[in-house]
Amino acid sequence: MTDTWTLHPDRALPADPTTRPIAREIYAAVRDLPIVSMHGHVDVAAFADDEPFPDPAQLLVVPDHYLTRMLVSQGARLPELGVGPAGTPGLETDPREIFRRFCAGWKHFRGTPTRYWLEHELVEIFGVTVRPSAETADEVYDQVAAAIADPAFRPRALLDRFRIETIATTDPAWSPLDEHAKLAAELPGRVLPTFRPDPLLHPARATWRDDLDRLAAASGIATDTYAGFLDALRERRAAFVAAGGLATDHGHLAADTTPLPDDVAQALFDKARGADGAGLSTEEEAAFSAHMLFQMAAMSAQDGLVMQLHPGVLRDHDPAVAAAFGPDKGYDIPVAAEFARGLRPVLEAFGHAESFRLVAFTIDEDVYSRELAPLAGVYPALRLGAPWWFLDAPDAMRRFREAATETAGFSNMSGFVDDTRAFCSIPARHDLARRVDAGYLARLVAEHRLELDEAVDTAADLAYHLPKQAYARP
Amino acid sequence: MTDTWTLHPDRALPADPTTRPIAREIYAAVRDLPIVSMHGHVDVAAFADDEPFPDPAQLLVVPDHYLTRMLVSQGARLPELGVGPAGTPGLETDPREIFRRFCAGWKHFRGTPTRYWLEHELVEIFGVTVRPSAETADEVYDQVAAAIADPAFRPRALLDRFRIETIATTDPAWSPLDEHAKLAAELPGRVLPTFRPDPLLHPARATWRDDLDRLAAASGIATDTYAGFLDALRERRAAFVAAGGLATDHGHLAADTTPLPDDVAQALFDKARGADGAGLSTEEEAAFSAHMLFQMAAMSAQDGLVMQLHPGVLRDHDPAVAAAFGPDKGYDIPVAAEFARGLRPVLEAFGHAESFRLVAFTIDEDVYSRELAPLAGVYPALRLGAPWWFLDAPDAMRRFREAATETAGFSNMSGFVDDTRAFCSIPARHDLARRVDAGYLARLVAEHRLELDEAVDTAADLAYHLPKQAYARP
Amino acid sequence: MTDTWTLHPDRALPADPTTRPIAREIYAAVRDLPIVSMHGHVDVAAFADDEPFPDPAQLLVVPDHYLTRMLVSQGARLPELGVGPAGTPGLETDPREIFRRFCAGWKHFRGTPTRYWLEHELVEIFGVTVRPSAETADEVYDQVAAAIADPAFRPRALLDRFRIETIATTDPAWSPLDEHAKLAAELPGRVLPTFRPDPLLHPARATWRDDLDRLAAASGIATDTYAGFLDALRERRAAFVAAGGLATDHGHLAADTTPLPDDVAQALFDKARGADGAGLSTEEEAAFSAHMLFQMAAMSAQDGLVMQLHPGVLRDHDPAVAAAFGPDKGYDIPVAAEFARGLRPVLEAFGHAESFRLVAFTIDEDVYSRELAPLAGVYPALRLGAPWWFLDAPDAMRRFREAATETAGFSNMSGFVDDTRAFCSIPARHDLARRVDAGYLARLVAEHRLELDEAVDTAADLAYHLPKQAYARP
Repeated sequence: MTDTWTLHPDRALPADPTTRPIAREIYAAVRDLPIVSMHGHVDVAAFADDEPFPDPAQLLVVPDHYLTRMLVSQGARLPELGVGPAGTPGLETDPREIFRRFCAGWKHFRGTPTRYWLEHELVEIFGVTVRPSAETADEVYDQVAAAIADPAFRPRALLDRFRIETIATTDPAWSPLDEHAKLAAELPGRVLPTFRPDPLLHPARATWRDDLDRLAAASGIATDTYAGFLDALRERRAAFVAAGGLATDHGHLAADTTPLPDDVAQALFDKARGADGAGLSTEEEAAFSAHMLFQMAAMSAQDGLVMQLHPGVLRDHDPAVAAAFGPDKGYDIPVAAEFARGLRPVLEAFGHAESFRLVAFTIDEDVYSRELAPLAGVYPALRLGAPWWFLDAPDAMRRFREAATETAGFSNMSGFVDDTRAFCSIPARHDLARRVDAGYLARLVAEHRLELDEAVDTAADLAYHLPKQAYARP
Repeated sequence: MTDTWTLHPDRALPADPTTRPIAREIYAAVRDLPIVSMHGHVDVAAFADDEPFPDPAQLLVVPDHYLTRMLVSQGARLPELGVGPAGTPGLETDPREIFRRFCAGWKHFRGTPTRYWLEHELVEIFGVTVRPSAETADEVYDQVAAAIADPAFRPRALLDRFRIETIATTDPAWSPLDEHAKLAAELPGRVLPTFRPDPLLHPARATWRDDLDRLAAASGIATDTYAGFLDALRERRAAFVAAGGLATDHGHLAADTTPLPDDVAQALFDKARGADGAGLSTEEEAAFSAHMLFQMAAMSAQDGLVMQLHPGVLRDHDPAVAAAFGPDKGYDIPVAAEFARGLRPVLEAFGHAESFRLVAFTIDEDVYSRELAPLAGVYPALRLGAPWWFLDAPDAMRRFREAATETAGFSNMSGFVDDTRAFCSIPARHDLARRVDAGYLARLVAEHRLELDEAVDTAADLAYHLPKQAYARP
Repeated sequence: MTDTWTLHPDRALPADPTTRPIAREIYAAVRDLPIVSMHGHVDVAAFADDEPFPDPAQLLVVPDHYLTRMLVSQGARLPELGVGPAGTPGLETDPREIFRRFCAGWKHFRGTPTRYWLEHELVEIFGVTVRPSAETADEVYDQVAAAIADPAFRPRALLDRFRIETIATTDPAWSPLDEHAKLAAELPGRVLPTFRPDPLLHPARATWRDDLDRLAAASGIATDTYAGFLDALRERRAAFVAAGGLATDHGHLAADTTPLPDDVAQALFDKARGADGAGLSTEEEAAFSAHMLFQMAAMSAQDGLVMQLHPGVLRDHDPAVAAAFGPDKGYDIPVAAEFARGLRPVLEAFGHAESFRLVAFTIDEDVYSRELAPLAGVYPALRLGAPWWFLDAPDAMRRFREAATETAGFSNMSGFVDDTRAFCSIPARHDLARRVDAGYLARLVAEHRLELDEAVDTAADLAYHLPKQAYARP
């Protein structure tokens, strides 16, 4: 532990002295490749407006759910971390105080990817030279605050500095896409929308009727009938295509894609919209959502938007927390996922269609070798998405490679996607993935299972070429 | 293989030459820390009476279900190993003969933790200098027999020699706690009871009515009504608290904690007690047990006893074996566990309560990264229990660290618990866990994911400080 | 990458410099042990007729579903690879063209076991000296074609060259076993049949009634009653025993072995055979199949045929592909498996029977540590089958050892089985398994968890002695 905080150039590479030099060589070949960030949640406004980031807490702490979850698990209350709508009792509004709480909890991030991402950001992006702690909190804060006051730290400047070739945002189906239109003019091909219709496909959500109205307004097509609903969705998808969108994104509890007969689907839609407020039963809701996933696949096979599916998350595990602090703040928790039967209808229908591509993600790693790799290893339309969310960490990423590659190979992978709303963590996330992949490939070389030239070529595929291929409209 | 059997000082540390010296340094820093054994099944009478151990077979073979299972799988019959109630046909009563069968089967323990624990015990505790085998069985027996004849090998002396600061026993809810009262006077704070009400929470068990009577007798509160039943449980919990108890322990088939409305719970209780003998259906039994877990959590939030939950075991897989040789002898087998939905009611109700702590264990490792780490990584009341039972082995413990740490961090762990009734294996088990943790932490250091000072600090947390924290009444 | 393609002698051994020399020593001790191939699917006619292999494509590409699946996942159509019945539109009949497609896709096999097996075959068996690629396809083809024209490459000669001591084929229950009779005379004890009654135990299959007729014809026992059906199965099992058969093989969707009352089983049989064509419901079909597994176990306990169970595969995931290209071509996909409850009836009944042995396989690795190892680690009749199918790859085999050994030990394993219909891949598969086991055992030695002499002894058990023991009729 030196006085000045620096990061080791070999971090996250394998320690074994035979493997490390090979890993270094592979990593060196991909370290500086451009970033293709085809699945993420940075707000499009950041790029459209290009305003300076507000303050270190709003930049690094408040929006990072990995970070706030860990502090909550150790006794912090969300409002103390600045999380919650205005007026929340105890809501901390002093960014320096929030930042102190984060720095005081630095120990709790040991062994987690948050630690890696944050130290990368603090040292490599913001030039911080002391480790975070209760004692150094203000010094770190001041250093970050000084950096983000510099125009070189505005979002568009950072796009260049981070070598981000393309970044996709996530946008509601009813988005007017105005900001994307502005960006298409000012930064052509650099910032792309992603079509996310989740709320519309789940009639049980409290906002569903309002969201139908939003869809109608955005599309100019009445959504009071099932046929109109489908047409309106088609219209918005076309608008996303026109705005440069390459993909859709679907977060469902299950991967079930079983279609319903048209009349049944229509009856469920009507029942969900019915004035009596009875709504759908849990089973009906699940059946309708599954049916709509099939419809989304069918539309993708028409319009070429790459379909992304992220199932297996129980949203808002603690409803009281969600009610108090807003949607997605209620502690999402993974549950067991099932893909072999769930994806079967879509793969039977479109699994060999040249115009269709499906990228499937999981946070239930139990299905890597059992279901996803065997499916991706045979259906041409299916790509296996990168390690996602809780599994987006060094050992988990290594487990993914080890469990999935032997059956699916590398060519059926999506390559890395960062899936983050924390813009400044994007280079750290891609860098970590490149290091972990270099380490995995180096082991294959060291065990004489792959030649070095193949490993370098594969590392470039995973870091750059495969995401470009996977998200090119087929 | 030298003539004299010795153990390598680096055993169970990583082989890689970069990592091993770091692991040695971390291990050296924690090797001699006191043992905090907060979850175990050593009989309290061992400490209360402090009698010498009977013989090597009764000490090392007969009560060790890891050991007897392996020999059974290779064709031994339980009675040949001295297992079974008096009068069992073929029950071996010659301890030397039992010990010979164990030594002749030494090969079968290769690669299992039993091998590690036993070689540690034989060499480091009993001074054995030859490897067990059919040929050496009598020599090993004689050496162990000579050792345990020495007063230095009585249980209380071994408590000191093993550096056991605190040890928890497991006691039925109706225990009068007399032996604990004696120990509280003679060895204050050293041997603590744990409240285990399992039989009372499962009305379908054959002994349930008798156990209710035992509860009534111990508590002085009639248990013929649901309200009385709850009051009697509260009384016994208070008695355990008064006797120094820090925790409860719950072994249920499922982790379901769904509460029932009071009147439904009461009706199930009455139905289970009903004179008609009809009892509860399987579904009713499961619902009542889940409801009672919720009640236990509610009582823990009142009295501060740390709640331990060990679900996911199908008890007595072979009922004929259980019938012949006694409960828990019938080959317990793990089944798939589910925590995300199961724990939700308790976590919604008490997950943020400062007075409540839940330590969850699993022998279904598929839930480490999928459910338990995400839950422990956000709910302040939840700690993730150590690798348990079949997973309490070098590679399994390493998998636990790798799968759980990246999401839960270290601070949300219980630290190591040995969970054994084999008293002399306790130092071996803690030593092995410290070695495996040192190896895991050394890899993080060697991969520049953690600094060495942080790794040493974390190793001490896992070995000593976290168990003390986790089992301190909140 | 040298000009001449050679394979590294240390391939698939651990890279760590401490562990590799130990692994080399262990591997050297088992490398040349004979092959005992007790579970495989090479056509018995290959040995009975001893004809030359037709051409490189028919030998290496067309029958290898690992290989064709990967090319399909990258856009190839099965007919382009020569797969499909005569008359299939687009069916490629030029073996050289098929071989070119395989060579052009060589990149896609990186990181998969197919890569290892094929390079072993091409270099070590066929003497190929250039890596496959679009450019070298014809050169590689010519080299393989020249080799298989040599009488030294006929199947029986290769049996010797491959050091195959015994090989089991898989044969339908109604097989007349003529070819096995011929082989018993000409190559005594070398090629053995395996009794595979799957189609007869699944009344819902379209061929079931025809298969019943085949069974009746082969056994000379009418199969129009349930009693006759069982008698006919017994007769065929006896014929397999007489022909040297040692085992049965069962591929069911689930591991359920729950027996039905005789009258219920008989009623289901009658209903399935009924002229009205209604057949069994899905539940009835599953119940009947489970019941028949129990009957097979009961017969095994009588006749000593070792029972092999391979559950957990959803056959023909894409029915249209199966319809076009034949059974087993429709992309089999694993699903979650359950053994603890499923095997319970058979283990309760026969788990301690000295005349019964069950070898259980899985492609759901989630059950290794949770269910299979605990079961195999206590029931003497149960052996844990080797890593199977998708899991028959270096990292997956290592995970199997790491997850299963600590609970089941080595003595409860079946040893390696290759399970292949690709005859020339057999030495490669056994060699890879021996290397991976040597690496695993070497780590145990390097970590001082096992002595070197024990590791060498265990490696020989896994490679040779355990398969011989596991498949010896008990």
